[in-house]
Amino acid sequence: MGKITASISTSVDGFIAGPNDGPGRGLGEGGTALHSWVFGGPWDYDEGPKGEATGEDKAFLDAAMADLGAVVAGRWTYEAAEHWGGTNPWGLPVFIVTHRPEEQPPGDDFRFVGSLAEAVDLARNAAGDKVVNIMGGADVIRQALASGVVEELTIIVAPIVLGRGKRLFDGFENRVELEHLGVRQSPFATFIDYRVKRA
Amino acid sequence: MGKITASISTSVDGFIAGPNDGPGRGLGEGGTALHSWVFGGPWDYDEGPKGEATGEDKAFLDAAMADLGAVVAGRWTYEAAEHWGGTNPWGLPVFIVTHRPEEQPPGDDFRFVGSLAEAVDLARNAAGDKVVNIMGGADVIRQALASGVVEELTIIVAPIVLGRGKRLFDGFENRVELEHLGVRQSPFATFIDYRVKRA
Repeated sequence: MGKITASISTSVDGFIAGPNDGPGRGLGEGGTALHSWVFGGPWDYDEGPKGEATGEDKAFLDAAMADLGAVVAGRWTYEAAEHWGGTNPWGLPVFIVTHRPEEQPPGDDFRFVGSLAEAVDLARNAAGDKVVNIMGGADVIRQALASGVVEELTIIVAPIVLGRGKRLFDGFENRVELEHLGVRQSPFATFIDYRVKRA
Repeated sequence: MGKITASISTSVDGFIAGPNDGPGRGLGEGGTALHSWVFGGPWDYDEGPKGEATGEDKAFLDAAMADLGAVVAGRWTYEAAEHWGGTNPWGLPVFIVTHRPEEQPPGDDFRFVGSLAEAVDLARNAAGDKVVNIMGGADVIRQALASGVVEELTIIVAPIVLGRGKRLFDGFENRVELEHLGVRQSPFATFIDYRVKRA
């Protein structure tokens, strides 16, 4: 059976978005620097991203994509990403955790599921031997870490202190021991791969 | 003139100590893992640290010590470290930032100073061409970052989520842009070196 991984970009002070994140400003005010690594450099909401990942950023993405079998995301992430324009960009099963699964849009690009546990079960079956990646947001990753389902965690730290926004570990009070799997760095991010130790 | 650096160990969720840090438990409850890298592995308050830094941990320490000209620390750090037994362990000028400089102990192992700005000025003069390192705690590093005096920042991330304690960036609302200088990793820590960009 495939692995369950979680990965998310944060600032040095642990924010996964600046203030007031939502549709049209998925990373919040001042938060685009969190995803400079995805787009090959700085970008803004008005003009949108222009470039592509290169170097270590591309190496990380390519390795992640090569093993990927299914994706789990939270409803807020889905909304903030503006439903990825209504089309699943991965070409792989994507499960959206939501309190309102009945709002599932037509088609099966995105499958709405009522709980994280159920989403992970469905994703695991869909992924077969491949990886299930929990891509965020913060709330879904906190739930996944607290439930003990995450086997590997990648924290992607952008070189910025944001000062304000939505913290990955806000309200998370569990102790979780980790083990290093490796680190890589580009001009735009430091990727730290951890194995989650069983208690 | 020498550089002003700041460096501190944190958990993955950004805590520099577990709850209830103080004398005899300088890293708070459950916080000793933050300094496993200093002592070559896990340790506890009862038995104290036994080992020494090796490999990448030692390389980081050796490089830091080679350039060091003076140290600035906060009063809480000084108290939590139990005054380093009353003897300056660096053999270099150490300035302690405190609201009560009149409590300076006899001798000049530790020089009590009434503000961070004053401590940095004195340390800079004492260090000459060498580095002034602001070693923490969190409050002193936040003040130093907010005042713009820090030229290089090293975040030393231990592979643990603590869940509770004292956050490095708690209450810090400034935006600070950084640039990567490099990264190294041992089994016990990931050392991320940043240059602080001028606004």
